[in-house]
Amino acid sequence: MINELKFSGVVAGIKTKQDARDVGLVVSEVPANVVGMFTTNQVQAAPVVWSKQQIKSGTLRALLVNSGNANACTGAQGMRDVKKSVQLLSKKLKISSKEILVCSTGKIGVPLPMEKLFVGINDACSQLSEENFKNFNESIMTTDQFPKVWQKEILLGKKSFHIMACAKGAGMIEPNMATMLAFVFTDLALPISFMQKMFKVVVNKSFNSITVDGDRSTNDTALWISVPQVQLSRAELLRYQKKIQEELLAACYELARLMVADGEGATHVVKIHIKHASSEVVAKRLAYAVARSLLVKTAFFGQDPNWGRIMSALGQCDATVVPHKIDIYFNDLKVVGKGCAVKQDIEEQAHNIMKNKDYSVIVDLHMGSKEAYVLTSDLTYDYVKLNSEYRT
Amino acid sequence: MINELKFSGVVAGIKTKQDARDVGLVVSEVPANVVGMFTTNQVQAAPVVWSKQQIKSGTLRALLVNSGNANACTGAQGMRDVKKSVQLLSKKLKISSKEILVCSTGKIGVPLPMEKLFVGINDACSQLSEENFKNFNESIMTTDQFPKVWQKEILLGKKSFHIMACAKGAGMIEPNMATMLAFVFTDLALPISFMQKMFKVVVNKSFNSITVDGDRSTNDTALWISVPQVQLSRAELLRYQKKIQEELLAACYELARLMVADGEGATHVVKIHIKHASSEVVAKRLAYAVARSLLVKTAFFGQDPNWGRIMSALGQCDATVVPHKIDIYFNDLKVVGKGCAVKQDIEEQAHNIMKNKDYSVIVDLHMGSKEAYVLTSDLTYDYVKLNSEYRT
Repeated sequence: MINELKFSGVVAGIKTKQDARDVGLVVSEVPANVVGMFTTNQVQAAPVVWSKQQIKSGTLRALLVNSGNANACTGAQGMRDVKKSVQLLSKKLKISSKEILVCSTGKIGVPLPMEKLFVGINDACSQLSEENFKNFNESIMTTDQFPKVWQKEILLGKKSFHIMACAKGAGMIEPNMATMLAFVFTDLALPISFMQKMFKVVVNKSFNSITVDGDRSTNDTALWISVPQVQLSRAELLRYQKKIQEELLAACYELARLMVADGEGATHVVKIHIKHASSEVVAKRLAYAVARSLLVKTAFFGQDPNWGRIMSALGQCDATVVPHKIDIYFNDLKVVGKGCAVKQDIEEQAHNIMKNKDYSVIVDLHMGSKEAYVLTSDLTYDYVKLNSEYRT
Repeated sequence: MINELKFSGVVAGIKTKQDARDVGLVVSEVPANVVGMFTTNQVQAAPVVWSKQQIKSGTLRALLVNSGNANACTGAQGMRDVKKSVQLLSKKLKISSKEILVCSTGKIGVPLPMEKLFVGINDACSQLSEENFKNFNESIMTTDQFPKVWQKEILLGKKSFHIMACAKGAGMIEPNMATMLAFVFTDLALPISFMQKMFKVVVNKSFNSITVDGDRSTNDTALWISVPQVQLSRAELLRYQKKIQEELLAACYELARLMVADGEGATHVVKIHIKHASSEVVAKRLAYAVARSLLVKTAFFGQDPNWGRIMSALGQCDATVVPHKIDIYFNDLKVVGKGCAVKQDIEEQAHNIMKNKDYSVIVDLHMGSKEAYVLTSDLTYDYVKLNSEYRT
């Protein structure tokens, strides 16, 4: 529990589903430090444009989230609607609109239903409580089949701080976008520059190392909000820097893994781990090439150790590989040696590994010392079902 | 009918399916001119390595194709097997091995069953006939549900020449790769340099403008083989150059379209046409970004005019777009104007257009004068079914 943070999540009727929470609010009683990472899609929703601008101050008092409507591709009106919401919230909470960030997820191309949202904001303000983290998390969910939360107390010598985190995605709400929202809350006083650097590394190894369908949404947002309660000396900061980053990564990695596990129709989470690459960038690119291949993803669904598809996915990537150097493992089982099938018949063993819900495909390039991984899901009937059903 | 060309397609038992033709042969009684385009995948099958080397001479007497085994990821043995096949054929037909090209499609990572192939080559040699084009075409098919052939006589003033063409793909044979093979035969005497230039343009606008699942195979090959029967004067060549290219493109475009229509589980062929781009390269890249998006492809399956997914796919491409300039049309129906939904309710009309088996999505970027298109298929339950079933 982080004392200075209050949460709420209310039903405003923006989602079509009856009684579904769709407006969420987080308020910090004192100015909190905030850093964030936003979608790299060139089509950016109005709330993303707003939040990218406001976050430069590094200070946050309130975070407003709605689900059911992405407020994307809504032109000038979209931006006006963000500002109206922020103004209302600013007035209600008596805080500067500069300290308010906004996220939306849901239908694209449809203006926000402002009357419903306004009622929702009013209700959200009146229901703020330290106890309502669960309600807040519900309000950001769309097609998520289970909540994605993380809470932990971390000891730093005699001091301790808390991590509370939640996320939604990468599912999509009918009829729309796979949006990822992730919020990490801590009660550790940290310099903004320090937070920025650390969050970039952590997001890169978690939320930016997953794929369900390869699409980046117009609304993707990850925020780290830290209430400066627990103070560290400079010496402590240096001593615990690595530990803090590890704990932050543990939280974000698990949320990212849960997103993939909850990827639409997914039945397996597979870690594509590229080893001994010439650079981390190359390793990541190759990992994504495998992780996004439809042929690979359907083979994962079929639990079919069809390594030829992995070789082919590597080969068609714009990063250079030397095919006859490549070794491939399923967990500890070697299935490819120097680009060819291993001599032993490993079909059955490989198939058994692929029955697991989580396993790794390790590709050893023998080309350097760098590595990277991407978590991916399998491509299933349910993925097609969820994404092809007509909206009416 | 091209007089100097003889075809055969025989059953050698390489495919597991009973009585399926799997070894094909084309022989030209006189040296033919040949140009080709090969997969850009870095993992290249042994027959691709062989053919890329031999085609440099520009002369062909025989083309050997087998289905059922891709001879890919087979290391040094794969290359030895290609050479053995070529040697046998060279001896049987009394032609130089330098004038023999080879293509394979099928299982990856498994050595060719050489005894079966040898029997197949023998049979193929004994069954050569001008009449057997159909058998040859059957021998290259894998999961293709219908043959892809094109035959036409083209008048050039008082002269005429013939185009015969066939293709397989982009389906895959269990348990493996989506390989595209395409062969165009003509009886027109053309300089090799002329053929190379023209084929590059034509392939770029046909076989290299389609996607079913975004994967390029280890074995993709397109060849244009021309028997120098019909001679053109230099003046005629100049006069009919454009006409020849148009006819070649018509053939290749239709074969490419049929490949997409026969894409595994496909129920729609959609032309993603990017207009008014700053360059053709940018237009093509954006077209592929839309054509490969799983969210877009599932929306096509669901006949759901979910243009937000198209906007998002454009936005996440590494080519620059200006979202608020973008117009999108389904055939003639405008669905997006300046990046936002059009005012009228076009949902029903758009849905009706999407019921067609073939239609176009036109994206006007308003950023220049260049254009490009990509043909894509929808992503269906059957795609997942065909690609995920375990091989045993």
